[in-house]
Amino acid sequence: MDKKEFIIRQLARTSNKKYEAYVVNRIVHLLDDISIKFITQQYVTRPEGRALTDLFFPQFNLHVEVDEGQHYIKKNTEKDIIRESDIVNATNHKIIRVDVTRPLEEINQKINEIIENIRMLKNYIGFIPWDIDSEFNTETYIKKGYISVSDNVAFRTIKDACNCFGHNYTGYQRAGATHPDNDIMLWFPKLYPNGVWDNQISDDEETIIERNVNAEIAREHVVSHLEKQKGEKYKRIVFARVKGSLGDVLYRFRGLYELDLKASNEIIGLVWRRVLSRVKTYSH
Amino acid sequence: MDKKEFIIRQLARTSNKKYEAYVVNRIVHLLDDISIKFITQQYVTRPEGRALTDLFFPQFNLHVEVDEGQHYIKKNTEKDIIRESDIVNATNHKIIRVDVTRPLEEINQKINEIIENIRMLKNYIGFIPWDIDSEFNTETYIKKGYISVSDNVAFRTIKDACNCFGHNYTGYQRAGATHPDNDIMLWFPKLYPNGVWDNQISDDEETIIERNVNAEIAREHVVSHLEKQKGEKYKRIVFARVKGSLGDVLYRFRGLYELDLKASNEIIGLVWRRVLSRVKTYSH
Repeated sequence: MDKKEFIIRQLARTSNKKYEAYVVNRIVHLLDDISIKFITQQYVTRPEGRALTDLFFPQFNLHVEVDEGQHYIKKNTEKDIIRESDIVNATNHKIIRVDVTRPLEEINQKINEIIENIRMLKNYIGFIPWDIDSEFNTETYIKKGYISVSDNVAFRTIKDACNCFGHNYTGYQRAGATHPDNDIMLWFPKLYPNGVWDNQISDDEETIIERNVNAEIAREHVVSHLEKQKGEKYKRIVFARVKGSLGDVLYRFRGLYELDLKASNEIIGLVWRRVLSRVKTYSH
Repeated sequence: MDKKEFIIRQLARTSNKKYEAYVVNRIVHLLDDISIKFITQQYVTRPEGRALTDLFFPQFNLHVEVDEGQHYIKKNTEKDIIRESDIVNATNHKIIRVDVTRPLEEINQKINEIIENIRMLKNYIGFIPWDIDSEFNTETYIKKGYISVSDNVAFRTIKDACNCFGHNYTGYQRAGATHPDNDIMLWFPKLYPNGVWDNQISDDEETIIERNVNAEIAREHVVSHLEKQKGEKYKRIVFARVKGSLGDVLYRFRGLYELDLKASNEIIGLVWRRVLSRVKTYSH
């Protein structure tokens, strides 16, 4: 997918709600800067719970919400969509609201302010222009020397994630892979109930619970880890399998997690705690 | 309806086709001028036949068509929508095409050219800023002294049209009304088959055919006119009842028509020919 397709498809997603479409289109077109990435209808977790924001600028951790004067009612079916989706933890993100019940002049004025804000943020040190080719590219992160949660890193395939840690795969489909550090495993889980595993991740992303739906397998899995049989490892670098904003599969970097031996048991399953949000990369 | 509602609803109509939405939104937002009126998805007649244009600027008789590299296939059901719709004769209008199969930079460049074009046209003598309150207002045309087809004039109600010709109605629902000139009748027909009348207007708007669906009534109607019984008049100022772009009813000025005595007969019906595209208005 190139930027043209990405931008046009992102803008087309706002089409059901006419005020949202107006605000999102106007911001993007007047900002008129293809070095700035945007996502429409981004799922986020916040202290208040999960929600959608109408426009998300990942380079600035900035969100725009179109306030139509009535709260968005979540449908029951939506839970299923949310749990597979790429969810951003927006706890420390900035959220700007646009009240579309105001007159058009005021709405446009507010949009101008948002655009000025974004242009100011872009001038800060550390702005990296949106590069749709390199953002999913192994080389980008090998060169950088690390992968960090704060950079919103995701890969399109498991092999791309593996190849940031010394591998040189042309294809790889398994949910686990080795790491140069023998204590660490690369893990590519679905972090939602998926028929085989009842995994979940906390809204703050700090805790992952891993549990097989089959009680017997679940028990064995926990025991073999707690007793460190078969060379099971206590550290995992996690890339969660999610659906991206346009329905594409992504492996989203979540950090390095360590097994919490005290909290894990045969009932709860394995409890993993995040210990690092940034990990070193390795060339092959 | 105020400008805010009009603009936002017009933009929301483009939402089914993502490239069209991109181009239309980008033009409108970058033009950023609420003195310029626009209509999305305007029905037009052209020498090649009837069609939809994606964006119409009535003040400049300028259309933008988004060329997606494949021709828009008209559904059969669409004929019914078209015949009631407000159709603009675009024979001498300018049409600019945007080829969205090109790279994004080229599309954006083309859009910039269109915007420059429109800004130049606006600087021509004779530009009248879009005023959503006055455009449907009787006083506007009484003050002006005339109503002209080239000004794209329409009214929201029959009484508003009547009151441009010496009446002072607060309500009026009949399809005919008097005019200060005794030879002229004001006429507000549906110019499509509507169950009672099988009226039609030619694509160039120069000819209207009026015929009752009931053969007996049709015959009597023609005879009474050709023999000028009951004070039937040979001249009519026509405001056609149409559905506006947002589904609202409009009475669109078509001109002054005169009965073609030679062409009219009991089989064809009454044939009206346009003799004037501009008529004088009268204060009450």
